Formats: sequence, structure tokens, C-alpha cells
Amino acid sequence: MNTGLIVLAAGKGTRMNSDLPKVLHPLAGAPLLVHAMRAGASLAPERTVVVAGHGVEHVRKAALDYDEAAQVVEQTEQLGTAHAAAQARPALGDFEGTAIVLFGDTPFVRPETLTAMVEAQGAHDVVVLGFQAKDPGRYGRLVMQGDQLDRIVEFKDASEAERAITLCNSGVIACRAALLFDLIEAVGNDNAAGEYYLTEIVGLARARGLSATVVTCEESETLGINTRAELAEAEAAFQARARSAAFNSGVTMPAPGSVHFAFDTVIGRDTVIEPNVVFGPGVTVESGATIRAFSHLEGCHVARGAIVGPYARLRPGAELSENSRIGNFVEVKNAQIGEGTKVNHLSYIGDATLGAKTNVGAGTITCNYDGVLKHRTEIGDAVFIGSNTMLVAPVSIGDRAMTGSGSVITSDVEPEALAIARAPQVEKPGMAVKLFEMLKARKAKLQRGS
Amino acid sequence: MNTGLIVLAAGKGTRMNSDLPKVLHPLAGAPLLVHAMRAGASLAPERTVVVAGHGVEHVRKAALDYDEAAQVVEQTEQLGTAHAAAQARPALGDFEGTAIVLFGDTPFVRPETLTAMVEAQGAHDVVVLGFQAKDPGRYGRLVMQGDQLDRIVEFKDASEAERAITLCNSGVIACRAALLFDLIEAVGNDNAAGEYYLTEIVGLARARGLSATVVTCEESETLGINTRAELAEAEAAFQARARSAAFNSGVTMPAPGSVHFAFDTVIGRDTVIEPNVVFGPGVTVESGATIRAFSHLEGCHVARGAIVGPYARLRPGAELSENSRIGNFVEVKNAQIGEGTKVNHLSYIGDATLGAKTNVGAGTITCNYDGVLKHRTEIGDAVFIGSNTMLVAPVSIGDRAMTGSGSVITSDVEPEALAIARAPQVEKPGMAVKLFEMLKARKAKLQRGS
Amino acid sequence: MNTGLIVLAAGKGTRMNSDLPKVLHPLAGAPLLVHAMRAGASLAPERTVVVAGHGVEHVRKAALDYDEAAQVVEQTEQLGTAHAAAQARPALGDFEGTAIVLFGDTPFVRPETLTAMVEAQGAHDVVVLGFQAKDPGRYGRLVMQGDQLDRIVEFKDASEAERAITLCNSGVIACRAALLFDLIEAVGNDNAAGEYYLTEIVGLARARGLSATVVTCEESETLGINTRAELAEAEAAFQARARSAAFNSGVTMPAPGSVHFAFDTVIGRDTVIEPNVVFGPGVTVESGATIRAFSHLEGCHVARGAIVGPYARLRPGAELSENSRIGNFVEVKNAQIGEGTKVNHLSYIGDATLGAKTNVGAGTITCNYDGVLKHRTEIGDAVFIGSNTMLVAPVSIGDRAMTGSGSVITSDVEPEALAIARAPQVEKPGMAVKLFEMLKARKAKLQRGS
Repeated sequence: MNTGLIVLAAGKGTRMNSDLPKVLHPLAGAPLLVHAMRAGASLAPERTVVVAGHGVEHVRKAALDYDEAAQVVEQTEQLGTAHAAAQARPALGDFEGTAIVLFGDTPFVRPETLTAMVEAQGAHDVVVLGFQAKDPGRYGRLVMQGDQLDRIVEFKDASEAERAITLCNSGVIACRAALLFDLIEAVGNDNAAGEYYLTEIVGLARARGLSATVVTCEESETLGINTRAELAEAEAAFQARARSAAFNSGVTMPAPGSVHFAFDTVIGRDTVIEPNVVFGPGVTVESGATIRAFSHLEGCHVARGAIVGPYARLRPGAELSENSRIGNFVEVKNAQIGEGTKVNHLSYIGDATLGAKTNVGAGTITCNYDGVLKHRTEIGDAVFIGSNTMLVAPVSIGDRAMTGSGSVITSDVEPEALAIARAPQVEKPGMAVKLFEMLKARKAKLQRGS
Repeated sequence: MNTGLIVLAAGKGTRMNSDLPKVLHPLAGAPLLVHAMRAGASLAPERTVVVAGHGVEHVRKAALDYDEAAQVVEQTEQLGTAHAAAQARPALGDFEGTAIVLFGDTPFVRPETLTAMVEAQGAHDVVVLGFQAKDPGRYGRLVMQGDQLDRIVEFKDASEAERAITLCNSGVIACRAALLFDLIEAVGNDNAAGEYYLTEIVGLARARGLSATVVTCEESETLGINTRAELAEAEAAFQARARSAAFNSGVTMPAPGSVHFAFDTVIGRDTVIEPNVVFGPGVTVESGATIRAFSHLEGCHVARGAIVGPYARLRPGAELSENSRIGNFVEVKNAQIGEGTKVNHLSYIGDATLGAKTNVGAGTITCNYDGVLKHRTEIGDAVFIGSNTMLVAPVSIGDRAMTGSGSVITSDVEPEALAIARAPQVEKPGMAVKLFEMLKARKAKLQRGS
Repeated sequence: MNTGLIVLAAGKGTRMNSDLPKVLHPLAGAPLLVHAMRAGASLAPERTVVVAGHGVEHVRKAALDYDEAAQVVEQTEQLGTAHAAAQARPALGDFEGTAIVLFGDTPFVRPETLTAMVEAQGAHDVVVLGFQAKDPGRYGRLVMQGDQLDRIVEFKDASEAERAITLCNSGVIACRAALLFDLIEAVGNDNAAGEYYLTEIVGLARARGLSATVVTCEESETLGINTRAELAEAEAAFQARARSAAFNSGVTMPAPGSVHFAFDTVIGRDTVIEPNVVFGPGVTVESGATIRAFSHLEGCHVARGAIVGPYARLRPGAELSENSRIGNFVEVKNAQIGEGTKVNHLSYIGDATLGAKTNVGAGTITCNYDGVLKHRTEIGDAVFIGSNTMLVAPVSIGDRAMTGSGSVITSDVEPEALAIARAPQVEKPGMAVKLFEMLKARKAKLQRGS
């Protein structure tokens, strides 16, 4: 069925106490908005409309970064959810499929839930997403008559019998687009807040003799974020699910509470993840790899059998081949590390390609930036880079070549050659002791002077 | 009103199983004693007297480090709280204001609570700090008659009716100094432990027809520390409050449980703190800065828009200007980092001043220590320090200058100059392979020999 | 009394979703199997037999790594616990002492519990380890008659009265070896699973008029591991106990939940362990040492007063003498660090011996690997190694010698000598600005071209 998404993302989120619009606060490495858009994207919608308000330009950028085909419309005044959804009319008014209204601050709705709503919409005019609340509190109640949703009652207007209902309103709605905008037009703002509420369309539909129903989901799916503490709770909920999923897919993780996943982290079976590992967005780790303690990975790929860390930082574009090894205090950025190649200690490898079975000594640095431009370093197979080699890019080191430790390599090195740039060692007998005596005398003089 | 503090800090804390006196065990980066003194300092007391016993010299040092005007008196024998407080008499006997007796192992009393006690002392002779206990257990009970505190009953002496009382004694007392010492003089030690209990002064005051009352506080304020496990619980309670406060003041923190604050950490609004960050004492982070994962900060200042880490260590005296950048595996100590300046990788910057818009290459080290003295490095604006530059201090690099990567800079560099200290690169064709063959032959020989 | 252990370790552990046999999954840094073997080893058994099946070669290796005297026998088909124990007959059939059957996936049985079983076996023919279950669920029930164990009833076969019993079967059994194998021979497999169950020997013994009894332990001791989530829970339980034990022995640890111990970690009194510290196997830290945040230790020894970290990595063979100091972003492997010696920043010290009171500058690297062999570096007392010194091993530096910063040291340095290998600094006035202009022009050209 053709679907069109309307994602309401205009609110400021005053209780976040932030200059950042609420929907742009990150959860598991992606803005809340993107979580909502991802859920909706599972329906392969024909059109996606994001209704932005506060921080419209930032919201537009985030929405287009995720889906360049999204349309972002602006709600200049925040007059309620019906008014917000109405802003999508120019973009969806002629759309013949099912419109689904999602909330940009509600990140956990599952694709299966949305699919169920779309299916239910085939048999009903209006479909509301509800949930059985453990503690219904002040949620709006869904009053059913058989499989028909009779009306949505706000808590403050509910009778005692209605308050006993535990089926509550999530706010998410599915409805044919044309009908949605038609019903919205009839929504009034005759209430204490003077706002136009989207939930009103259920009553309006029923008054016209149309059919409404409810699809239910887990309460956890409907969690909305209003404060930073709630955001942290949502993050904790996300992480708990991600850790549990990792266990089920055969990941070894002795201290799961100290491992932080991103929304899109992919970890293979029999991968070991030691304590204190942080995954930023865009990481794939193949089966049988080991991520040791205190490692930080973003936008990178780790192949089978590779060992990373402890204290390794893989930045975007790091691609580790099978059985390669990135060790402690090593940073890798935008670089391919060949099969079985090792960079074990205290190095920076950026904008580089390393062949297979190459060994990079401690303290090696690819000098990729000249103050203006970035340049690449190419290193072949079975190369031995001596400790503390400076590779002044652009530069290439041929297969089976070697560099002397402490060398600054500015010219290309031929295969099988040894390149060395080193001043001769000079020894001055007794000089260390003399220097120390001199320095101590100077210190004593300074202390007398002070 | 004039106030004088008496902080009881003589106990050994046997259950801590430590050579360190109990009140010197750290909570959120400061000794327990300092937490109590800080609470009292909010009253701007005229005099502060710390009663020390076990480890008196260490306690004296900690007290004076925090407040050089504090008087530290020694209780040579630990004969009870009244005896301890009596040691303050030489220091406070002539004092005409209100004395407040605090406990050095009770770190959470709030300033507002002490203010309320001082105010109550205006209308009553003795003011006791009480709390409604969730589980009163073996606490002493406060027996009230209207707003008068009739007496304090120890649990073991309490009747069944008295044990039903949930208003309990914290031990903290406010009283005019002269009266306090007068009452203490009358306290006896006719009890099982043979100790002089400060709580006795309530009964003695009432027997003289004086007025006593109770000010109540949260139970959490009265938490005393007796074991390392209790200390860890107190630390957890402190951290939970600090994280909650950070959320309220608009800090973004996806994994709050992995962020550790110090007692005096100040974090601005819309600052992002990633997982696994440790704040030691003396850190201020301005609004809109980002502290990335695995960073460690102590005694430093981070200005707006600066980005720190991951894996950055800021030590005391690190001052980061706006939009500066300290990256991974970088240590900064006693150094000013200018606006927009970047030190992105694997560097040690100590005892240095860096100007604005300067770029420091990976592996750069300020060689600030010659084995006897420390020296400073001065770097101007818009300088480009090549990777792996050794800056042998004292040394200065002028504005817009540049150093070649791998250079050891021992002399000052003029503005706009390029300084370079580098041996020429020499290439020996085929030598790498020959060397490898030789080494492999040697290894084979060694293996045959073994 | 002579004892012989039978450790059942043949299962695949399908629910682990792993290629690794279940008993080899690590808990606190050691395979589950080793935990069981360690518990049994406390009895100083004459013989230890491990019954392996899935991944027999890996299991054999792990068993022999822990105890080279262990015998590993193979169970080629997994036909139940009695069948598994029967595989030990060739190894133990002639053994005259007490056989104890343990489970390789049950890591928490305490030595005291096994001792109690062996003692009870003196008075009874068969001794079963039981526990009072909080929630008996589907455990087998132990039906007692006085101090005699009448029979073991599987949950599914239990009457309502039997299901009310809370004394449950752990599966661990002690019995004279000869009798054990005799009884096992009589066990049948007439049950739904068609398996031979070891628990059957109780009924068989009783039928012969033999005596059986129960020794009880804590329920936590009998925890078996079947899934990765259970393994993580077991790890959490281990860590909680280790942290509590550390507090009791006088360790200071402000954030205990972020400290991860190994099964054999030894930490002295008044040691400070800051947040986020990971101990791998084989670490001993003496009293009064400090392990700062983000440190990672494996197979190393830290003496009194030494300070490690933050961000220090001590690898196997690191031996730190009293009051030595390993600082941030420093890796130490197979190296002795002398008394009072400091390696404070960004260094790699591998295969080395450092004397006392030596100072190693930032960025120092022992170049211990030539691509084929590893070599040692020897550094004397009171040496000053300048920053970024490359020590190309094998090499030795005499007492009180000094190296110039940025030097590559390839030849031995005499005591008291200064060794330096450094190209002279050359300054090219105005060249930095010219270079920048040139680079900017190139960039502009590139951008026009694109």
C-alpha cells in the first residue's frame, strides 16, 4: 500500500533546557528525528514530510542528511498537533495513499507496528496506535466499542469509569491522506490551551459515521522524550535492548553495561567486546574479531579475526582486513589496513593504504596534513616501518621495503629498499654528569634568588 | 549572626581498614572533612575549629589546605563527642556567637539546613538537627513536646512508645558557644562505653529550664561514613545528584552512569559529555563545549565550543580557549591553548603557551624538563608545528612560523620562518630484503642452537 | 583423604550460540572450566580427569594449561551425565579414594563446600551437593529421611508434596571411585531423553542398602551457565563479590562498578583504584599503590607506592618497583622498572630493564623488534632519557648517562656520557609564509579544477 509519512518535529522542547531543537538531541548516535524517520522508512513510503518549527534549518539539515528525498515544511506557530499535521497538506494533499503521523520525539516505534497500522487502515478509516499502560496516569484513554474506537478521552475530561481504562493513546495515527486533511480542517481549538489537537479527528470521523480502530503496541514503543533525564532513560533502554540482542547473536561481552552501541552497530558472532568500548555510528565488526577494552570506533569496518585495542581509536573510513591488528594508543582514520598487518603502538595512520603482512613500528605518524591540504600515504605488502617513522605524505613505500627508526621519509621508497634519515650518534664522555651538575647549580642559584 | 564551626574529625575509622584517618578518605575528589567544612563555610563563620586526633598532622594539612584560617586542635584521647567538642574551648571559649558542631565524616549536610539551624538558635538555646528516618533502627529518638525538644533517648534506653518515634537525632547541634561549653562541662560518662556524649547537653539544658528545639533535614543529609562500602555508596549518591543536576542545567550526557564528577565540577549548558569521562577537582567547562569519551580532566578550564578528546587528558593549569581542540592521546598540563588552536593527536603539551589558530602536529612534545628544572615553551599565532617536533624548552616559536616534521627545535624560531632539523633521506636499494634474510638466518641459527 | 576429580566438560552449549565450547567461555579472565578445576584443586586431588567432548582439543589445551597433570578423556557421544562420568573409569577405576564429580560450566562452587562433601563422604557412601532454592522451579528435589537422602526426584515426576520441597539438587556428587563406577554401570536410560543420568546412582545406592546424604551450599555456588546473558550475570556476580572483598581488605575504590577484576587479582590495603580500571589475569598490586583511571593491567606486579596511569597499560611481565611511576599513554611489557623510576608520557617500554631513579622522557620507544627477533634494552640507574629517544635494541645505557631528545640510539652508551644523534637546526626566514602561500595557491587551483 502507498504510504506517506508526516513526522511532527516542530517543538522546541523547553524542558530540555537547550538551544538544540528537541528532535535533534541524539539517541544512540542519531537524532531522535532520525529514529522516527527510520521507523517510518521501513514502510518504504512514497513521500516523507517533516514538519519543523523551532530550529527549522537545523531540523531540515538533519532530515535531508538522513533522507534527501524528504520534504521539510515549516510550522511557524506551534498551535497544536492538528495544526502541525495540516502543514503537510501542500506536500500530501494530492496523495492517494495512507498518511501516517509520527512524532519526532518518539524514537522507539517498531516497523512491525507501523505495518500493522497500515494493514488495519485497509479496513478502517482512522487507525490510532494505542498501548496497554502499566500506570495509565494522565494519558488519554481509548474508549472502545468492540473493535471500533468510539472516542479518545483526555484524562481531565474522563469519568471514573473511563479513567479505569488502561488502553491509552500514543498519538500516532494512520488515515488516508485526503480524509486526514479533511478531518483536520474541522478540528477546533475550543479548549484550555487554545490548541488544535489531532486526536479530535477520531470523534469527527465517528460523527460522520466513519470507522476508527486501534492497533496496539508495547508501551515502550510509545516513549516520548521531554527532558534530558528522559533522554538518558531512553538511551539506557536502547542500550539494554542492544546488549541483549548482541548476546542473542552470539557476541561475548563480559561487562555489557560498559559497552555503548550506536543505532546501527553490526557485530558478528563470536566477536569479543571487552569492557568500556564505545561504538559511534556506522560500525560493522565481523565474526570472530576482538575489540579490546577502552576502544572507540566510528564509521569503520573490522574484518574477521582482527584485534582492536585496548585504547584503539578507529575513525570514519578505517577499514581493517582479516587478522589485522590495531593496538594501544593508535588512531586510524580513512585508511585501509591490509590482511595480517599490525600497527601495535602509539601511532597515527590517516589517509593511508597499508598492504598485507606489513608491520608498523611504535610512534609512526602519517604526516597527512601540510597546513592546507591532506595527502595520502601508500605502503605496500610485507613492509617494515621502523619505530617513530614520519611518513610525509604524499609518499609511497614499496613492497618489502624497510624504514630506519626515527626517519623522516619525504621521498618515495622503492620496493625492497631500506630508507633511512638519521643523524649519526655522538657520545660525549662524562658530559651527562657535568650537565646535571650545571643544572643543579643553576637551580640552587634560582632558589637562593627567590 | 556570628557563627563558629566545630568540626569533629578525631576518629580513626577502624572499620575503614586504612592507615588514612577516616575523615581524609576522598568523596568526589575531596576529603570527607572538606565536604563538612564546605557546608559550614556557607555560613561564613568567624572561626572554624577542627578537632583532630588520629593522623592529626594529615588532618591539619587537609583542613588548612582548604581553609588556612581554620584552627586545628588535637584530641589526644577519644573519650566521646562531648569530650571532642570540649577541645574547641580554648579556640572558641570567648566567642559570643553561635557554635555549630559538625561531623567530619558526615559530608552531605546542606548549607540551607545549617542556616535554618542558626536561625532557630535565635529563638532557642539548643538546636538539634533531626530527620524523619525511613527505618529508624537503632538511631537515637527525638522526643518532642510541641516545638520543644524534651530529650534525646538512645535506642537501647527507649520505651516501646519512644521506639515508635521516627524523628531521629543526627548529632549536629547549634548553641551559643559559651553555653555549649558550660553544658559540656556538666556531661558525665556514666554509661556502658564510659564516653562523654554531646547529646547529653539537651537534657542538661532542659533541666536548667532552657529551651531546645529540632530543625529537620532530609535523611540523606545525615549519612555518616564508617566503611569503604558506605563510602562507595555515598560516592554513588553524590554522583547521582550531580548527574541529575547536570541534566537540569542542560548538559547532554548519553551515559550518565559512566561520568564521574568532582565536588566542584562546573559544566555549562548544552555541553556534551560522552561516555566514560572522569572529572577531578577544579574543572570548569563552558557552555557548548564537547568532552568526548574516555577523557580525564583535572584543574582545568574549557571554553565555549572547545572539543576535548576522546582520550584527552587535561591536567591542572590547562586552559583551553574558545573553539580549541585537544584530541586523542594528548596530555596538556599548565598550558594555555589559544582560540581555534588544535592539538589533535599523540602529544604532550606542558608548561606552554600556544597562540590562536595554531596547528600542532601529531607526536609533538614540549621537552619541558631537563632533569632538574622545568622550562616554558611559547608558540605564537597561526603556527604550524610539524608532526613529531621536539620543542626543547625554553624555546619560542614566532607567529606564522613552521617546523619541519621530526625536527628537534632547540633555538627560538622567528615569526614566519621555517625551522627544520633533519638528516637527509638515504635509500639503499635491495637492502631491506638483505637485512631480513640476514635476520632470518640469525634466528634460524639461534633456534638450532637452543 | 585422597580425592580424585571428575570434571564434566563435554557439552557444546548450544544456547551460547558460539563455536567455542561452553566451558571455555571466559569468566573473570579464565575459562569456566578453570574455575571448576580451581575449586577442585583446593582439595589437592591426586588425580584430575576432565571429560571433554565438543571442541575436545581446545578443552584439552585449556585443562593442561591450568594443570599439566590433568588427564583429559574424550566422550565422543553425549549420552548423559552418568555416561560422561563413566569415561573417567580408565583413569580412575583403580583409584581408592573419593571421586568428586564437578561440572565445567558451574564456576562458583567454593573449596569449603567440596571439603565438607569429602568429610561427609567418610560417613556416607554417596554425598550429593544440595541447596535451599529461593525459587525451586524445575530443579530436581532432594527427598530426605533424617540425615539420609532417600532419593532425587525430577520436577516432572514429583508429587505435589515433593514439589513443595525447597532442597534442590546441584548435580555435584562425591563417592568412593570404585563404588561410583559400579553404580554408574547400573544406570539405565529409560527416560524421555534416552540419557544416562548420574543422579540415578542415589536410588541405586539406597536400593543396595547404602547410605546417602546431602551437603548444602549457597544457591549462588551452584549457578550453571547456559547462555551468554547468564554468563554476563555470572560475571556481574563475580565482580560484585570481588569488589566487596576489595573493600573489606582496605582498598579505596570510588567507582567500584567501573573496576573489573580477574579471577586471581590481588590488591593490597590502602591501594587506590580510580574509575575505569581493567585487571586481566595475573596481577598483583601491593599496598599503598595507586592505579589511576583508565588503566589496563595484565600479568604484572606493582610494588608499594607506585603510581600507574591514567591511561597506562601494563602487559605481562611488567614489574614496577616501589615508588615508580608509569604515566599516561604508556605501554610496558616484559620490563622491570626500577625504584623511583618514571615513565610519564606516551612511551613504549618493552623487553627492557630500567634501573632506579631513572627518568624516561615523553615519546620514548624501545625498538625491540627488528622484524624477526626481539631484543632487550638495558638502562641503568639515574639515567635521563631525553624525549622521543629511540632505543634500538639490543642496546644498553650506563648509569647516570643522558640521551638528547629526538636521538636514535643504536650503540651502547657509557655511564655518565651524553649520547646525542641529531641534525642541526636550520632556519629559513620567511619560508613558512611562502610555503603556506604556495600550498594555498595549489589548493585554489585544485578547487578550480574540480
